[in-house]
Amino acid sequence: MQDITAGQYQLVYNFFSFTIAAMAATTLFLWLNRSQVAKYYRPAITISGLVTFIAAYHYVRILDSWDGAYEVIDGTITATGVAFNDAYRYVDWLLTVPLLLVELILVMRLSKSETISKSVRLGTLAAVMILLGYPGEISDAAGVRWLWWSLSMIPFLWIVYELFVGLRASLESQPASARGLVNTARYLTIFAWAFYPIVFLFPMLGLQGGVADTFVQVGYSIADIVAKAVFGILIFFIAVRKSEAEGEEASA
Amino acid sequence: MQDITAGQYQLVYNFFSFTIAAMAATTLFLWLNRSQVAKYYRPAITISGLVTFIAAYHYVRILDSWDGAYEVIDGTITATGVAFNDAYRYVDWLLTVPLLLVELILVMRLSKSETISKSVRLGTLAAVMILLGYPGEISDAAGVRWLWWSLSMIPFLWIVYELFVGLRASLESQPASARGLVNTARYLTIFAWAFYPIVFLFPMLGLQGGVADTFVQVGYSIADIVAKAVFGILIFFIAVRKSEAEGEEASA
Repeated sequence: MQDITAGQYQLVYNFFSFTIAAMAATTLFLWLNRSQVAKYYRPAITISGLVTFIAAYHYVRILDSWDGAYEVIDGTITATGVAFNDAYRYVDWLLTVPLLLVELILVMRLSKSETISKSVRLGTLAAVMILLGYPGEISDAAGVRWLWWSLSMIPFLWIVYELFVGLRASLESQPASARGLVNTARYLTIFAWAFYPIVFLFPMLGLQGGVADTFVQVGYSIADIVAKAVFGILIFFIAVRKSEAEGEEASA
Repeated sequence: MQDITAGQYQLVYNFFSFTIAAMAATTLFLWLNRSQVAKYYRPAITISGLVTFIAAYHYVRILDSWDGAYEVIDGTITATGVAFNDAYRYVDWLLTVPLLLVELILVMRLSKSETISKSVRLGTLAAVMILLGYPGEISDAAGVRWLWWSLSMIPFLWIVYELFVGLRASLESQPASARGLVNTARYLTIFAWAFYPIVFLFPMLGLQGGVADTFVQVGYSIADIVAKAVFGILIFFIAVRKSEAEGEEASA
């Protein structure tokens, strides 16, 4: 962490602040617009807002921790000796990733038993995936990082496969007007989720010191914004389209 | 408290932060979803959210107090001399445990007189239980700890017995669709509540120094998450099921 430059430090700092604003704004957008969707979809919107709320909280802590780890005086950066706390991300993911899966499952409006079984199965797999990633994240040894990365990839691939294939199968049962957005949600999930294991690999792929730190922090922030805020807004618009389509059916 | 390692300190710190996020998220989930249950059950949901709100507030204070008690510089931990404030937990419990009992009594929808008498009796017993535990918690003498622990166990066992047996008796009067969840609530109460007196015993059972502190802090945090957040969500789903069942009856 010592090789970071003042410019890299500032870049990461500003990215964290941007992420706080994006997460908080998304939370309020979702909660304030909750009444725009049919009653059935409101818990999905509430939970989407919870995900970005929890992320906003953790990014405030992450920014504070980053702030406490370095001091920039007259353009010169020095480490304060207080370590940057890597754990916040994992604590955040442990709460938000299972909730992300639940919001997606809820907006699909599957049968009650399928909703419960899918939520429990995918939520548990997500928690296991994150717990397996953490020992690797806090290690500096490439071998240890690869080991936990590989273990964590097992539940990761399982979830991604189930979402990608499972969502395609359920496309048929979605109203025509929502199909395009559900398909976007499928690809966004693959794209945003794939970001995380790749960012994890940065320090093992030749990136070093401050450059690696900067890429990892900025990379995770972008991935979080896409996977939580952009995804949450997409869930909202799927719920809006489905509410409209179902409202028409009901009144037809 | 001096024997704690930097790793133990960080683990406890991250657990506290996780607990803040979990409590705050649960509060918002409950309050935002309040309109999903029938009017009768809304006070129970409001109170469930109050319990996690009060807990979130106290965990912010607990984290700050923990932060102020130690300093970690370059991986080396030193006690600042400012003592970690144990009292926050007891102040929290004094407010939240009677409320927890009230939320459970309300969701059972007993007769008005039974609701009031049970709330007053169990609420008072809970307050007595917590007041009796505190003198033991702040003592380092095993004999003093055992004395207050034993005294505190009297109202504790009374409450647990009344809940476990009382809830079983009222299972009959619950709609069939909610019985499974009410039964889960019974067992969750026993399981989560039993955690507290066991965690209290850790320092008397051979655990020492930093290991004892870590176990106690992490143990109480887990117990609080289960007894307040998980329990609150369970109360919410019981209310949802009962609202559905009673709505059907009403329209039948």
